[in-house]
Amino acid sequence: MDLVDILAVKNEKRILLVVLDGLGGLPRKGKTELEAASIPNLNKLTLKAGLGLLTPVDVGITPGSGPAHLALFGYDPLRYDVGRGVLEALGIGLHPEPSDLCARANFATLAGNGTLKDRRAGRIPTELCAELCAKLQAAIPTMEDTSVVVRPGIGHRFVVVFQGPGLVGGLTDSDPQQDGLKPLVVASDDPGAAKSARLANRFIELAAAVLKDQGSANFVLLRGLARPPSIPSMRDRFKLTPACVAAYPMYRGLARLVGMDVLETGSTWDTELETLRKHWDGGYDFFFLHLKETDKAGEDGNFDAKQELIEQFDDEVLPQLQVLKPDVLCITGDHSTPALKAGHSWHEVPVLLASPYVRPSDTREEFGERACCRGAIGRVDSVKLMNLLLANSLKLKKFGA
Amino acid sequence: MDLVDILAVKNEKRILLVVLDGLGGLPRKGKTELEAASIPNLNKLTLKAGLGLLTPVDVGITPGSGPAHLALFGYDPLRYDVGRGVLEALGIGLHPEPSDLCARANFATLAGNGTLKDRRAGRIPTELCAELCAKLQAAIPTMEDTSVVVRPGIGHRFVVVFQGPGLVGGLTDSDPQQDGLKPLVVASDDPGAAKSARLANRFIELAAAVLKDQGSANFVLLRGLARPPSIPSMRDRFKLTPACVAAYPMYRGLARLVGMDVLETGSTWDTELETLRKHWDGGYDFFFLHLKETDKAGEDGNFDAKQELIEQFDDEVLPQLQVLKPDVLCITGDHSTPALKAGHSWHEVPVLLASPYVRPSDTREEFGERACCRGAIGRVDSVKLMNLLLANSLKLKKFGA
Repeated sequence: MDLVDILAVKNEKRILLVVLDGLGGLPRKGKTELEAASIPNLNKLTLKAGLGLLTPVDVGITPGSGPAHLALFGYDPLRYDVGRGVLEALGIGLHPEPSDLCARANFATLAGNGTLKDRRAGRIPTELCAELCAKLQAAIPTMEDTSVVVRPGIGHRFVVVFQGPGLVGGLTDSDPQQDGLKPLVVASDDPGAAKSARLANRFIELAAAVLKDQGSANFVLLRGLARPPSIPSMRDRFKLTPACVAAYPMYRGLARLVGMDVLETGSTWDTELETLRKHWDGGYDFFFLHLKETDKAGEDGNFDAKQELIEQFDDEVLPQLQVLKPDVLCITGDHSTPALKAGHSWHEVPVLLASPYVRPSDTREEFGERACCRGAIGRVDSVKLMNLLLANSLKLKKFGA
Repeated sequence: MDLVDILAVKNEKRILLVVLDGLGGLPRKGKTELEAASIPNLNKLTLKAGLGLLTPVDVGITPGSGPAHLALFGYDPLRYDVGRGVLEALGIGLHPEPSDLCARANFATLAGNGTLKDRRAGRIPTELCAELCAKLQAAIPTMEDTSVVVRPGIGHRFVVVFQGPGLVGGLTDSDPQQDGLKPLVVASDDPGAAKSARLANRFIELAAAVLKDQGSANFVLLRGLARPPSIPSMRDRFKLTPACVAAYPMYRGLARLVGMDVLETGSTWDTELETLRKHWDGGYDFFFLHLKETDKAGEDGNFDAKQELIEQFDDEVLPQLQVLKPDVLCITGDHSTPALKAGHSWHEVPVLLASPYVRPSDTREEFGERACCRGAIGRVDSVKLMNLLLANSLKLKKFGA
């Protein structure tokens, strides 16, 4: 148990954690996306908020969405490893149980000589992927005493979940990670994993038989075979009644992993706000509001779009959040996605934490990476953010006498 | 394995780590050596560099050169303990193997009653030390199945290396650390160290016989008996092909310990630069350039000299480094050596890291301790600097999906 688990107590105060995905940036002409944005409401909020920078995993480490969010929720991402197969399953909206074995799968092209001609099956369209998954699902509903769930993802990607007794993760991949090689046999050092490995290898064999006339998509590869980690819930650890408002399946899945109630919502910021308002007085004391679009603009390398989304948040979303009067309002990102890098990066993430108990910034302050360098919160590992959220909502007892 | 070891990948980008030994300082009339220096080139570089402060070992801890450099190279100095005997051996240019037992030795004066009259033999001159070491070496070339190497250091100091099977470190010192006491018997709690202790004690006995007519230098003391630690190489850990350009033996030795190629060079900054230029396109992707003189000026308590050396670096060295166009250029120190203290200190060390992916400072910024306090890199343990160097050269994969 962490110290915060021991000290957490329940009260009525409500915390609102807003994650603008990929918020942190790098400068273009001297200013980052956030620094370049016109954000009068956020800037005004800094007068009663502490500023700081969050380190998602460690200095210099670029996190994926899984570890970055687990850290924000107060879970050490090095301790709770969410495997690729599990993240993919969560990402397409499946709810794997801790006993389910999940695999990230690809359609692939196997040449006549038994080597892989194309590990991505010529990047088949999503529609064909869905069609082929339906065929596999119909042909392989079960194996031995185990149910098999096959669900399409994007392009050549899909997910296989094995649901039955005695399955374990930690298996090797069948994907050799390079065209021209033979697919590998799924294996494990753990003798207890024999059944899991047998099912995975047999699935590949059965799938190849189903797909034998499918041209480029005549084979499947499995990797990231893992079970969802067993994670103590936020209810148990922090005495919170937490809810998630997120449009994208992966973030909904990550929230479910730590025991949040995942609220039904739509795909726009407006519908997410509507959901938040609807449940605001519904007995929850922690809300995680996830806004994905900033990350997508960063991934696209589109500085202007990311800047505009931040401005839109400031103009349209933030005032509506303030109307709810959360006791603690925290606005941050899970990681940085600088448009300059067109991908996730290792850079620290700006954080703004408004509560009656913060040391605010100077009156001339703005919300941006440089201002956050000088902020009263300082540099904090993301995994410790939850300590601050609980402390600022007076949900932590004193340590020692 | 650290996270960074798992995520490191090879690419073509080149990192140049410049260590101005003992760079950090303390103010005289309000400005540190670095702040007082006229350094237009470094100041200009801050416009495209991140600034920060490195903590060599821990808050308030003054490091020696060994731990300070190991940390810069990405090795936890508390985990990899380089014994005094090993450092001394490295420092005089020996290349001890992991199986060699190294001892720091002193000539000393033993009184007739068997107590130590002077643990430093009246601080005999270096020339006499060399002469006595030659005598010892000639008289004691081997012991049992073990070769004995005796090499002079400065003044009364010398080094003994035992090279044979079954030797181990972790022995107690024979030096009681105080005049007037009897020398101690070298011992160990480890039964496997019996041979090592026996050889050490017997060496002391044989040496005393050789030295019996040498006046004040009639005895020897051994301490810091240790083998070089077994350290995974930078090649294995970080997938780097690293090279060292350093004039002084100890730094060359430390670089060799972590698996760097140690390039032949001369004793001036000019010859070090020449060496760097010569090997720049030689297939290396990491260069450690060590410049010792700033530390010496600090140790001498000579503020002006240290300031001038920093100015000389700015004026003569930095432009030549920039011509090489390293992908990542980092300028820092191993520790602080404030002239005010005339010795190493615990103060954090300014660091400047130039790459296309940094959050730079404001345009009014200068490179100095105070500016580094406000820098975007923040305060980072020296041991994490390598994470940043690898990240900025895009040599680290993403962690998790």
